[in-house]
Amino acid sequence: MTIGIVGGGQLGRMLALAGYPLGLDFLFLDPSREAPAGRVAPVVHGEFTDPEILKWLSRECQVLTFDWENVSVEALRKHARGARRARICPPVTALAVGQDRAAEKRLFERLGIPTTRWRAVGSRPALERALREIGVPGVLKTRRMGYDGKGQMRIRTRDDAQRAWETLGRVPLLYEEWVPYECEVSIIGARSTRGETAVYPLNGNVHADGILQVTRAPFGPARWHRMATQYLSRCLEHFHYTGVLAIEFFVRNGRLLANEMAPRVHNSGHWTLEGCATSQFENHLRAILGLPLGSTRPVGHSAMVNLIGRIPARERLLALEGLHLHDYGKQPRPGRKLGHCTLVESSPGRRDRLARTLLELVAPHVRLP
Amino acid sequence: MTIGIVGGGQLGRMLALAGYPLGLDFLFLDPSREAPAGRVAPVVHGEFTDPEILKWLSRECQVLTFDWENVSVEALRKHARGARRARICPPVTALAVGQDRAAEKRLFERLGIPTTRWRAVGSRPALERALREIGVPGVLKTRRMGYDGKGQMRIRTRDDAQRAWETLGRVPLLYEEWVPYECEVSIIGARSTRGETAVYPLNGNVHADGILQVTRAPFGPARWHRMATQYLSRCLEHFHYTGVLAIEFFVRNGRLLANEMAPRVHNSGHWTLEGCATSQFENHLRAILGLPLGSTRPVGHSAMVNLIGRIPARERLLALEGLHLHDYGKQPRPGRKLGHCTLVESSPGRRDRLARTLLELVAPHVRLP
Repeated sequence: MTIGIVGGGQLGRMLALAGYPLGLDFLFLDPSREAPAGRVAPVVHGEFTDPEILKWLSRECQVLTFDWENVSVEALRKHARGARRARICPPVTALAVGQDRAAEKRLFERLGIPTTRWRAVGSRPALERALREIGVPGVLKTRRMGYDGKGQMRIRTRDDAQRAWETLGRVPLLYEEWVPYECEVSIIGARSTRGETAVYPLNGNVHADGILQVTRAPFGPARWHRMATQYLSRCLEHFHYTGVLAIEFFVRNGRLLANEMAPRVHNSGHWTLEGCATSQFENHLRAILGLPLGSTRPVGHSAMVNLIGRIPARERLLALEGLHLHDYGKQPRPGRKLGHCTLVESSPGRRDRLARTLLELVAPHVRLP
Repeated sequence: MTIGIVGGGQLGRMLALAGYPLGLDFLFLDPSREAPAGRVAPVVHGEFTDPEILKWLSRECQVLTFDWENVSVEALRKHARGARRARICPPVTALAVGQDRAAEKRLFERLGIPTTRWRAVGSRPALERALREIGVPGVLKTRRMGYDGKGQMRIRTRDDAQRAWETLGRVPLLYEEWVPYECEVSIIGARSTRGETAVYPLNGNVHADGILQVTRAPFGPARWHRMATQYLSRCLEHFHYTGVLAIEFFVRNGRLLANEMAPRVHNSGHWTLEGCATSQFENHLRAILGLPLGSTRPVGHSAMVNLIGRIPARERLLALEGLHLHDYGKQPRPGRKLGHCTLVESSPGRRDRLARTLLELVAPHVRLP
């Protein structure tokens, strides 16, 4: 059976590596000749919006899924009307919501999932109104195509607002309150085409310069995990979701405030490759194929550290006992996610000590709370 | 960096899947258009004995290694004389010994590793002499190309001897005593180009019809593990070995009798993919690249069950909690190894119960002692 994957980045690459042992084959669509998935599977080169290529891919594969959620929903909706086409997982409605921060916020509110206060901003007067109603500090964000801290600016003063409008104001925006959160967490789970669900332990995430740097799991009190699971389950059921879904939260005074969702495998779940009985990648594939979901039981206390901009010499990394290296085979570039490392230890204390040693090597500016 | 692998079977496929996260690329040589590695990496199609293809592969890659030990040692020796050629790991001398049961026996004796009594058999009179000196029951085996019980016949009577000679007598043979062993075990370890070594816990192996059916690990008393490790270490040092080496033993009255060695990753080590901190596949690659070896610490009590001749429906296998499936993507054929499953549990009792449930599904004729 061949799975079509739109987007040949590291997420797609890790999906393929998790799927080969299940006896699956893969075919990727990616515009880049250097897509990381291209080292491990065949890639068709073309634009994500090209309806002809999507049609072709769909005829070659049994299921279409995504490594990158910013695909053309319009093209996919047209595609879905054709006969004898691959099933699309996750559902296009979930992709559409995941592409638009305003749609996400509305969904969270509709499902009773706490989130930050916000306003859609389509004009300069609308920004003025939002600033009055929400106050400062706040964050102005593009509604679409934002990731790793891109497309957003913090606003503390009227001057900040002016600069942010000049920088971002050409596309639809959203203004939301800045929450002085205590930490960031994320929850990841899968729902299969048969309606079975499985949720992973809660992730504690540390960002630097807007990019995820460290994830630790299992993280936080059981109450946080229960709340997050409940919120995730509402989203999974709402969409009749198929595949893996992630939601990120700010934690503030013991409450979880939903920040955003990702309708795909998620960077904060990479530790599940070694840290859980079944990885998020394998469970995404099991879910979209209607196979029984695998256990999400953690096998220890895990830390995932992203390798950003550069990868230190392999021998230095691998000399750390128990370290698992994932090099995505990408050309180094400042701020680019090139790989990650996972540590699985018998206690949170041991895990944190080793993670700090690793951080000194790969990101000495990052402090682990 | 590109690793050349001679032989594109399931062992090569699993080497590539373990090596991609390390940032490595692979290039295989295999005569078959349906080689399992061909689904996950590029394969050059040609004969293992073709010196021109070996030369080309060697120029394309930094290191040459093997998924199949029965390659032409002569061709490799010639190759090694050329300039700017890939390093060959493991050493050709180890491959040469691993191809010839008589050379293996001589090595074991020379290194003080207990083995069964044996005689080389090159003629009918030599067989008569061997039968007189060793007695019956015994086993007549081809010196070369034997695996999975192929190329060997049990001898209890003069009639058996006559039939065995007629069937096997066209090639050099070896006659050895039949040992009424209590169980079979194997030890697997790696030695890196820097001389670092790492040894995995002892494996307990159950065969059916001459083919490995189940491996459980860690297995047996610590004393067995110590003996096996000592014997393995002698072989590793003898060859200045690089990569993973396996030795199989019969256990009889608390003694280990070496049966054969395999200069490569080994079927009885497949459980290390999920059951150890670092798999035999990753450690083979680390070893041949001179990288620090990864921890061989077991993460629980593992069982590996081979899928031979047929693979039951994926949904039935994956419904067993915690089961890891490895489907090699091969066409089903009676007696063919098509895949394996691994179970990792918190106690030997739980592991054995689950393994028995799995065996009912995949090989109901096999009894787990």
